[in-house]
Amino acid sequence: MTDYRFIRACFRQEVDRTPVWIMRQAGRYMPEYRAVRKKVDFLELCKTPELAAKVTIQPVDRLNVDAAILFSDILTLPEAMGIDLRFGEGMGPKLSPVIRSRSDIDKLKEIDPETSLSFVMETIRILRRELDGRVPLIGFSGSPFTLATYLVEGGSSRDFINLKSMMYREPDTAHALFEKLADAIAVYLNAQIEAGAQAVQLFDTWAGICSPSDFDSFVFPYVKNVVDRLRRDGVPVIYYCKGGSTLLDRMRNLNTDVIGVDWRIEIDDAWKAIGHDRAIQGNLDPCVLFMDQAGIKERVRDILERAGGRPGHIFNLGHGVLPATPVENVQALVEMVHDLSEQRA
Amino acid sequence: MTDYRFIRACFRQEVDRTPVWIMRQAGRYMPEYRAVRKKVDFLELCKTPELAAKVTIQPVDRLNVDAAILFSDILTLPEAMGIDLRFGEGMGPKLSPVIRSRSDIDKLKEIDPETSLSFVMETIRILRRELDGRVPLIGFSGSPFTLATYLVEGGSSRDFINLKSMMYREPDTAHALFEKLADAIAVYLNAQIEAGAQAVQLFDTWAGICSPSDFDSFVFPYVKNVVDRLRRDGVPVIYYCKGGSTLLDRMRNLNTDVIGVDWRIEIDDAWKAIGHDRAIQGNLDPCVLFMDQAGIKERVRDILERAGGRPGHIFNLGHGVLPATPVENVQALVEMVHDLSEQRA
Repeated sequence: MTDYRFIRACFRQEVDRTPVWIMRQAGRYMPEYRAVRKKVDFLELCKTPELAAKVTIQPVDRLNVDAAILFSDILTLPEAMGIDLRFGEGMGPKLSPVIRSRSDIDKLKEIDPETSLSFVMETIRILRRELDGRVPLIGFSGSPFTLATYLVEGGSSRDFINLKSMMYREPDTAHALFEKLADAIAVYLNAQIEAGAQAVQLFDTWAGICSPSDFDSFVFPYVKNVVDRLRRDGVPVIYYCKGGSTLLDRMRNLNTDVIGVDWRIEIDDAWKAIGHDRAIQGNLDPCVLFMDQAGIKERVRDILERAGGRPGHIFNLGHGVLPATPVENVQALVEMVHDLSEQRA
Repeated sequence: MTDYRFIRACFRQEVDRTPVWIMRQAGRYMPEYRAVRKKVDFLELCKTPELAAKVTIQPVDRLNVDAAILFSDILTLPEAMGIDLRFGEGMGPKLSPVIRSRSDIDKLKEIDPETSLSFVMETIRILRRELDGRVPLIGFSGSPFTLATYLVEGGSSRDFINLKSMMYREPDTAHALFEKLADAIAVYLNAQIEAGAQAVQLFDTWAGICSPSDFDSFVFPYVKNVVDRLRRDGVPVIYYCKGGSTLLDRMRNLNTDVIGVDWRIEIDDAWKAIGHDRAIQGNLDPCVLFMDQAGIKERVRDILERAGGRPGHIFNLGHGVLPATPVENVQALVEMVHDLSEQRA
């Protein structure tokens, strides 16, 4: 494998500058992305490999980030399992039918990535050709817990009452769902790696709503199950859990190369909790990108100082870049991370 | 003051049983509350002292909780400062005009609780007469930061971009807003105490979205400012911050009697972080009340065991009780807390 700065950092090898990429770096904050979206809706964009590849590369061209991340959505996996998926304008995703019983779970189809998710595999193959070694390509999936929230709630949720009720009233049903999703996710991520993904990230957007004991029972075993079945062979694995600051000491028992953290903990405290024998990714508050550039620079410097120049830091936001973010600030951010970390080195 | 179990626990004095009350204990999960709401809308209920007092007492009668909490809404304070407030059916609150500039802030009125919030003061006086020493009455307010989110965003928010942008781009404006709110809150809570509130809780529903350094700059000083100005004289002060598990070591520097914690941290870990020289309130996940009662009992026992029978634990949920909660489970919860803690004692 080409000697990528991002991949080296995942494995805690020395790098010339701190690598940086940005969650949701292909997105609405970028005029060239909006130009593509004028012609196709979001799901159609995910399912048209040439276009998905095109928007994946846009931030690489414009921002000089150290990795590309596959343009897709975590909910294309449930769709491949037989769930109807819609995105309305100005509202979140709607999934139907909702999953509430053992028989609902039994009806979820096993996936065959090269057929039901062929558009993802094809996007990855196009991207590997077109990126041609410039930067590595990150594949991804939602975690079992996070995907389950959408399947059981039928979309986004505030309190996750239906999923938690299932966990609490019919734990066997919840475990069956998490297990089925873990199986599908492992197959899906291995197919992405097979198709050419050079790193994979498991997004756990909602596990942070769990109490520590629920995390132990319902989240951790299934993340571990996925991670342990990945055919890694030089492909680093990242686990990112939003709102998971109190769960970091548990995450260190996952066999991932990198743990991603949000902005609600200082990165030095987070790294201590995770252990310095593990790489860390994060953790600028996405709202900081609404500051002027002098302000952004101060925050970037603070994170780099807290990370202390230790090998194994990948700079990122603590969550996805927000749609209204000024694109020039995102460009400036990447440059700052590179410049400031090079000065340190 | 009558020798209330709840008040004693706030001051870490010995009690016969762990006291328990429930955030949003007067609410839609209760048939007698829904019966009142059939006749009046939410804001009208807040503003009709006889009815507000009536629904405040309903959970005392039905649940046998150890404290009553004034039925009101944190947004009646911004309304008294001159902001228009509406609650639509099935949507969150809408506030207008939104506060975005120094001149918007200058237009916010100083409050005179006995005129612009006289309905609250009257409700408290009625409650003290009607409760007649059965249980103590808790007054409350939103924190400066939490109220600011509503004023600046114009309602509920996901990312709090407008408030954070103000904090980051025009910190002086944000500080002026937090300061003005802190002044109003201190006046408001002191008026509640004067009218008869026997404890007060400051709700910080949204401070948990701050990074630790933003909490230090924009949240902590104004909470401290409020707390330090309260005329306590036997009136305990509670600070509750949702999602604040990583900020507990900072909260210990607030001069409150009690810190309230949500369910995303085990209560023994939280108490360690806060320090055992401070009372703690919490922290059952509200969704646990959707379990069967055997399951609820196991969770209650776990929290009581982690609290370890140490004086200064007030049992509560980690957040407000959810509208669809079975009322009989809430009744059972209170009984369990009392019975299980009495057995320990």
